[in-house]
Amino acid sequence: MKTTERKWVYAFEDGDGRNKMLLGGKGANLCEMTRIGLNVPPGFVITTEACLSYLEDSQRRLPEGVMDEVRAHMKALEKKTGKRFGGGDDPLLVSVRSGSAMSMPGMMDTILNLGLNETTLAALIRRTGNERFGYDAWRRFIQLFGKVALGVPDHAFDEQFEAVKARVGVKQDVLLAPDDLRDVGDRFLKVVQQHTGRPFPSDPHEQLEIAIKAVFNSWMGKRAIDYRREFRITPKMANGTAVNVVTMVFGNMGNDSATGVGFTRNPATGENQIYGEYLTNAQGEDVVAGIRTPKPISELATEMPEIYTQIVDLRNRLERHYREVQDFEFTIEKGTLYCLQTRNGKMNAASMVRTSVEMHEEGLLTREDAITRVNPAHLEQMLFPRLDPRHKGQALATGLPASPGAASGQAVFDADRAEALGRQGAKVILVREETKPEDIHGFFASQGILTSRGGKTSHAAVVARGMGKPCVAGAEGIHVDVGARLAFVGDQVIKEGDVITIDGSNGQVFRGEVPTVEADFSPALVKLLAWADSHSRLGVRANADTPDDAARAIRYGAKGIGLCRTERMFNAPDRLPVVVDMIVADTSEQRREALDRLLPIQRADFAGLFKAMAPHPVTIRLLDPPIHEFLPTERQLEDDIARLTELRGAARGMEVLTEAARSDGKLPATLRDLAETRLIDAVIARKEAILRKARALREVNPMLGHRGVRLGITYPEIYTMQIRAVLEAAANCIRAGIDVQPEIMVPQVCTAQELRLVRDYMGAVQKEVEVTYGVAVPCKFGTMIEVVRACMRAENLAEVAEFFSFGTNDLTQATFSFSREDAENKFLPMYNERGILQDNPFEVLDVKGVGRLMALAVDWGRAARPGLKVGICGEHGGHPASIRYCDSIGLDYVSCSAPRVPIARLAAAHAAILGAVATDKAA
Amino acid sequence: MKTTERKWVYAFEDGDGRNKMLLGGKGANLCEMTRIGLNVPPGFVITTEACLSYLEDSQRRLPEGVMDEVRAHMKALEKKTGKRFGGGDDPLLVSVRSGSAMSMPGMMDTILNLGLNETTLAALIRRTGNERFGYDAWRRFIQLFGKVALGVPDHAFDEQFEAVKARVGVKQDVLLAPDDLRDVGDRFLKVVQQHTGRPFPSDPHEQLEIAIKAVFNSWMGKRAIDYRREFRITPKMANGTAVNVVTMVFGNMGNDSATGVGFTRNPATGENQIYGEYLTNAQGEDVVAGIRTPKPISELATEMPEIYTQIVDLRNRLERHYREVQDFEFTIEKGTLYCLQTRNGKMNAASMVRTSVEMHEEGLLTREDAITRVNPAHLEQMLFPRLDPRHKGQALATGLPASPGAASGQAVFDADRAEALGRQGAKVILVREETKPEDIHGFFASQGILTSRGGKTSHAAVVARGMGKPCVAGAEGIHVDVGARLAFVGDQVIKEGDVITIDGSNGQVFRGEVPTVEADFSPALVKLLAWADSHSRLGVRANADTPDDAARAIRYGAKGIGLCRTERMFNAPDRLPVVVDMIVADTSEQRREALDRLLPIQRADFAGLFKAMAPHPVTIRLLDPPIHEFLPTERQLEDDIARLTELRGAARGMEVLTEAARSDGKLPATLRDLAETRLIDAVIARKEAILRKARALREVNPMLGHRGVRLGITYPEIYTMQIRAVLEAAANCIRAGIDVQPEIMVPQVCTAQELRLVRDYMGAVQKEVEVTYGVAVPCKFGTMIEVVRACMRAENLAEVAEFFSFGTNDLTQATFSFSREDAENKFLPMYNERGILQDNPFEVLDVKGVGRLMALAVDWGRAARPGLKVGICGEHGGHPASIRYCDSIGLDYVSCSAPRVPIARLAAAHAAILGAVATDKAA
Repeated sequence: MKTTERKWVYAFEDGDGRNKMLLGGKGANLCEMTRIGLNVPPGFVITTEACLSYLEDSQRRLPEGVMDEVRAHMKALEKKTGKRFGGGDDPLLVSVRSGSAMSMPGMMDTILNLGLNETTLAALIRRTGNERFGYDAWRRFIQLFGKVALGVPDHAFDEQFEAVKARVGVKQDVLLAPDDLRDVGDRFLKVVQQHTGRPFPSDPHEQLEIAIKAVFNSWMGKRAIDYRREFRITPKMANGTAVNVVTMVFGNMGNDSATGVGFTRNPATGENQIYGEYLTNAQGEDVVAGIRTPKPISELATEMPEIYTQIVDLRNRLERHYREVQDFEFTIEKGTLYCLQTRNGKMNAASMVRTSVEMHEEGLLTREDAITRVNPAHLEQMLFPRLDPRHKGQALATGLPASPGAASGQAVFDADRAEALGRQGAKVILVREETKPEDIHGFFASQGILTSRGGKTSHAAVVARGMGKPCVAGAEGIHVDVGARLAFVGDQVIKEGDVITIDGSNGQVFRGEVPTVEADFSPALVKLLAWADSHSRLGVRANADTPDDAARAIRYGAKGIGLCRTERMFNAPDRLPVVVDMIVADTSEQRREALDRLLPIQRADFAGLFKAMAPHPVTIRLLDPPIHEFLPTERQLEDDIARLTELRGAARGMEVLTEAARSDGKLPATLRDLAETRLIDAVIARKEAILRKARALREVNPMLGHRGVRLGITYPEIYTMQIRAVLEAAANCIRAGIDVQPEIMVPQVCTAQELRLVRDYMGAVQKEVEVTYGVAVPCKFGTMIEVVRACMRAENLAEVAEFFSFGTNDLTQATFSFSREDAENKFLPMYNERGILQDNPFEVLDVKGVGRLMALAVDWGRAARPGLKVGICGEHGGHPASIRYCDSIGLDYVSCSAPRVPIARLAAAHAAILGAVATDKAA
Repeated sequence: MKTTERKWVYAFEDGDGRNKMLLGGKGANLCEMTRIGLNVPPGFVITTEACLSYLEDSQRRLPEGVMDEVRAHMKALEKKTGKRFGGGDDPLLVSVRSGSAMSMPGMMDTILNLGLNETTLAALIRRTGNERFGYDAWRRFIQLFGKVALGVPDHAFDEQFEAVKARVGVKQDVLLAPDDLRDVGDRFLKVVQQHTGRPFPSDPHEQLEIAIKAVFNSWMGKRAIDYRREFRITPKMANGTAVNVVTMVFGNMGNDSATGVGFTRNPATGENQIYGEYLTNAQGEDVVAGIRTPKPISELATEMPEIYTQIVDLRNRLERHYREVQDFEFTIEKGTLYCLQTRNGKMNAASMVRTSVEMHEEGLLTREDAITRVNPAHLEQMLFPRLDPRHKGQALATGLPASPGAASGQAVFDADRAEALGRQGAKVILVREETKPEDIHGFFASQGILTSRGGKTSHAAVVARGMGKPCVAGAEGIHVDVGARLAFVGDQVIKEGDVITIDGSNGQVFRGEVPTVEADFSPALVKLLAWADSHSRLGVRANADTPDDAARAIRYGAKGIGLCRTERMFNAPDRLPVVVDMIVADTSEQRREALDRLLPIQRADFAGLFKAMAPHPVTIRLLDPPIHEFLPTERQLEDDIARLTELRGAARGMEVLTEAARSDGKLPATLRDLAETRLIDAVIARKEAILRKARALREVNPMLGHRGVRLGITYPEIYTMQIRAVLEAAANCIRAGIDVQPEIMVPQVCTAQELRLVRDYMGAVQKEVEVTYGVAVPCKFGTMIEVVRACMRAENLAEVAEFFSFGTNDLTQATFSFSREDAENKFLPMYNERGILQDNPFEVLDVKGVGRLMALAVDWGRAARPGLKVGICGEHGGHPASIRYCDSIGLDYVSCSAPRVPIARLAAAHAAILGAVATDKAA
């Protein structure tokens, strides 16, 4: 292949920091850091184009010219560092790293200390006067190169390393003497010889070429391919990996050397304070591996005051340049600070919110950037329940608070099991000694993660924070036995399936399910959401069924109730028997009698809601579910009757006995009472009546059955009672000077005629109530749009309805012909896995199908009634991408569960700021 | 009210025969007949405007000027007839009839002989010399006027009439002497006096005014209002009734007088031959009432040859003018023929078809008129089953063949009961002595009608023919006892609920259900349908699952199979066990083993279909229903297992016994075999396996569950087997030189990705089959459109699918969120009654909702694939109004059950001829 016209290699000072597709994220970053004057070890990048050309070549040859350029850049490095590659007194060592346009943590391999061989090792030892350092670097290089470039399995090296430690009788690496490490190196060379059938390559240029090819090859490795598939990384997003060749600097050259990682702000709290950890006289991997316990970065101020000043300066430069919290790696080599890497810091939601607000106030971010910087979905972390602080139970164990939030679930000890149970709908907590990238599917399936090893920067902690799932890491008191599916904590045993609760905010682990309370708002969140509100076009309401719900919704910033499900009120224990009476009624008179008893209860419910929500609107949906849902199941009734009949038989027997005994005066009175069968007769009779009704009401497809407005028209007295309760409650409030805005909404509507009939009920009741109470009772009248036909008839419905509210739960079922209950258990996971559907359409609005239908209904509805108010009250109303779509088709408001209101408020602002085109994958 | 500028009254020679809204149908008709020179008795029409003005007046006064005009027209009548109204030697008598723009048979009342009083009666008797005629006319007038104009109940008159007959000792009216009739008249006058508190009005002008007002009032009578509601007659279609005042002519003035009804062609067969009945010396109502048995009109040729010639001339004029078969009434008064009325003849479908064809061939109709004159829905009559001619059972009774077709059902003896049972889904035959307009709801609910009295022009016969329901009339052997809910036939008793069968084509009545055979085609129908085909744009296919179905479809003129439901093949008794094996399989290997056994069976099925249908296309739908539908119900399995377990217990006991007996040699071998429990064990084990599977497959909403392509993707081996069976069958046919056009269709599709997956299965199998069989096997690949989302994604689906076929059964369920099984039993009848839905959307395509969705899908689909072939295979594909709509949105074909294919062919021609606008009420 003739490719001489292309440039394959860029020195850091020459590369364009914005061109990640060419240089990879890490390479571009190194170029950028170099460009802005940070002390980056000199190096260069081999482009992703070289990678692709290499991979296209069937014989896997590097494109012509690549190695020539590499050699020229090595010469340049020698010049810059004054060292020599593969020789001289001061040998030049380099690291070789992969780096593609998208960050793929843990997926690509790195080789350190490349350039060592017997000669340069001797020179290094001479130069540093540190035999231990030399042999340690040597054995590290052999193992990494052996593993990454030559495919020698890790355990082959580990066995030899353990053998030497065993021989010497030590447990920690640092206790090995230089000679022991030399022994390790020698053994490693043999391992390589054994596994590859060839001696370890001693020519540094050959080492370099092999390493470059190995990095390129790793792009097509199984782990990388799997990762790209899992996270749907397309060639447009990242195509090939670059290779970064960087001069080695050493944090393990003595006590004036160190290595560490830092965040420009505290990633756990967002506090504006440098945060990080370092280890003196250590290599970077020692920090990540968690073998030695690192020191907080603040201690550096005492230990190396001048360096600390440089780090603070570094931090300020990074934030000013990147306008984002940075997560950076540094090394101090003999008193010189090098910045090795920087990237945007991964933070939990609370920290994102706080840093957004503070960085705006510091002038680093515009207000729009501050708002859009926070992913609305991540707010869940802050808004979902914490453990009830009044809970005084004894923690079973305590670990590190690695990802905030609390969760309960069955303990499971491996990711496959977590996935299997999770798919069955079980809530599980994944409990591991530590986690690895291959456990990722277990994270997806779990409510939370508990590990017995590792710190806040461990794999488990980082991944859990990224996913917004609670995590307790390094709970050392717990011993996990994966084989036996058990965990031991002191003398206690957690079996698989035992329910445990973890609190990722304080690191505590409890046996059983611990009650939780809702989160409260940080001042930063309150401020950010206020900014969001001022940018939004969409209003945000809450779905709320009780005054408590309503009060909570107000606290979360809802501007009204978009959905009050009146049937939830029917299910309260004091009401259900009355509701059952209403259902088993044989005449409309009996039914009305039961309804008369429900009326004052519902009226009080609504009055409570109106008061809590004043002066915002409250949308009340009339009875929706099929009425048989309020009855026990047929099977349960049959069982009850069988049991009671048996009991009655027993009681009858006892009666005979009692009678006999009574004459003898031997039986106590209580037993005689028990033997009373009349009471049992009555109970049986009622159960039988309910059973008859349940059988009569049985439906083949209850989702598509006799429900919603169909019930309202069959039994006008039910809807009339509900409407009366709404209007009387409103009238009472109005007379008490409370500003109420009731809105009555009819469910399951498919024709304008249905709406007209219900509007007629309302008109009659309204007239009556206004006369009785002596006040005007304004009330809006609208319809749910949850039946497909309602969309098709939107013009006609809009002639009757003053507002539409999309019920996207049912609309999604009808649009897909998927019964949610059946689909989610039977075939939806399979559909997601095979890529037929990217998301669960019951969680993420299917904009292509359901959304298209909604857009038609909005347009047609507004054609008949310009300015028609349109909202959404399905679960999608709280989902950010779905909210974005709702904004784009011109909805007026979204309504969602109270804890999702802040998410919706932020998402609404995103929609307004980022424009109509939803960039989510669902779009 | 000042209305002097209006003209309220038109003489027959002045009225515009086309202006039915003003003159009413009857009035316009009389004007028209007069205009074309028929001998119509002179008369005039009082307009519907007069009616409306009268009804608007709160005091119910006739508008100013009406009576003045009436009097002027009466004067003119006197002049034309030479008679005098209310006096003279030759008194003028008139009839007063209602008549609105829409024909409402039997709903309005008529008064005859108006103008009689004691004076004119005497003059009439003098003039005619016929006392009997005079008193008969008098008593008829008093009763009609009393009932219609004065509200005296009929039975009050009937009682007196019976009393006179009892006194005289006769049973038939004609046996009464003139004096007896005079006695009847006197008694009737007293009845009127008693009931109204006033003497019978003797002033003919007063009589006339009262009669006019009575006719007007009847427009707002309960019967009329009910009728208009029932048949949805809006004010735009008919608003108010006119009053027709016509000179009386008398068919009962002696043996040179007669009265009769005629059809220009035989309404039962369509034969081109005058058809009718007459009674000598009788009034018209005697013919209709069926009291005397009329003579066939052909006898008139002998009895009054000259009149007969006039009648034949009348018939020819009528047909030439109206270009339609006419049903006319005539009276011969002393040798003069008068034509009293004519209207389009009501005919059964066979007659309509025959007359259409013949009238076109005679040059009376264009071909388009001949086609559109026949209501496609009425073809049902010809196409639905007749009694199996090989059935040799003895008829229980025989009546007149009053409306063709055969039907079985439970006997019911009143209309309310028929309606109640019919609503519960029972098939009923309404059995009555005779029927009346108030029985109409019973007709709607019944499969057929049986009466013991009345002829082919009786109410029962006319109404049944109009509805296309079988009717046997005047089965005199049957005595109906409504009170006891019994009918007696000789010594036999039919109880309510006993199943009977009637054959309206030959008048026979059978006990029990008699087997039926399908209709065969008349030559006229074959000709008409051929004409229809030449006018149609839409193709017509049949839904057929077996070679027999396919052969029948060909006979009915289908041009292909639009839907072959492969699951129906699974249900055959020899296959179901294999299907169950497939379902209970735990591994895909076991499943494949069962499928391997099904493959040759399905292959043979398809080969049979292809042969039967060659060279037309055959669309095969892959497995659609949820697989649990092939299993017994859980309850049945539980019962079976309980029963078998008990049996096993018994068998075990018997084994012990057997063992004991065997040693004695006393038990026969068969009993020992029976006692074998191992077989029972195996059966129980299998039932338990099926039960486990049934429970695992249970769904909350099976309609929206794991079915169709969702199954096909979960178990690729099922679809792959079916596809292989199709392609191998096609390959076999191709090698045998048979022209096959297989089309594979995927059900329940909601994403293009599903289609792509199945297309991939097909591609793989196709390649393999073509190699194995050595022939190219062309096969189209398409999708059902029965999920709403499929409509919304039509562009994308059309990229993969070569054709669409709307499954409007499921699409209707999803669009309405109505489960058909639940809706039709629970709330749909109520929705129809309350006018929320005019039709059952599962029978008549809901063009406003489902149709709009279809139109979008067609447009979007063709945007992606111009010329995309689109059909419909839901039940609506055989419904005329729905077919009309399908034509209007550009579908290529409809597919329906074989017996409906001719209906669809005719409807398709109607659509093409009558244009895109569907005029059906569903539109």
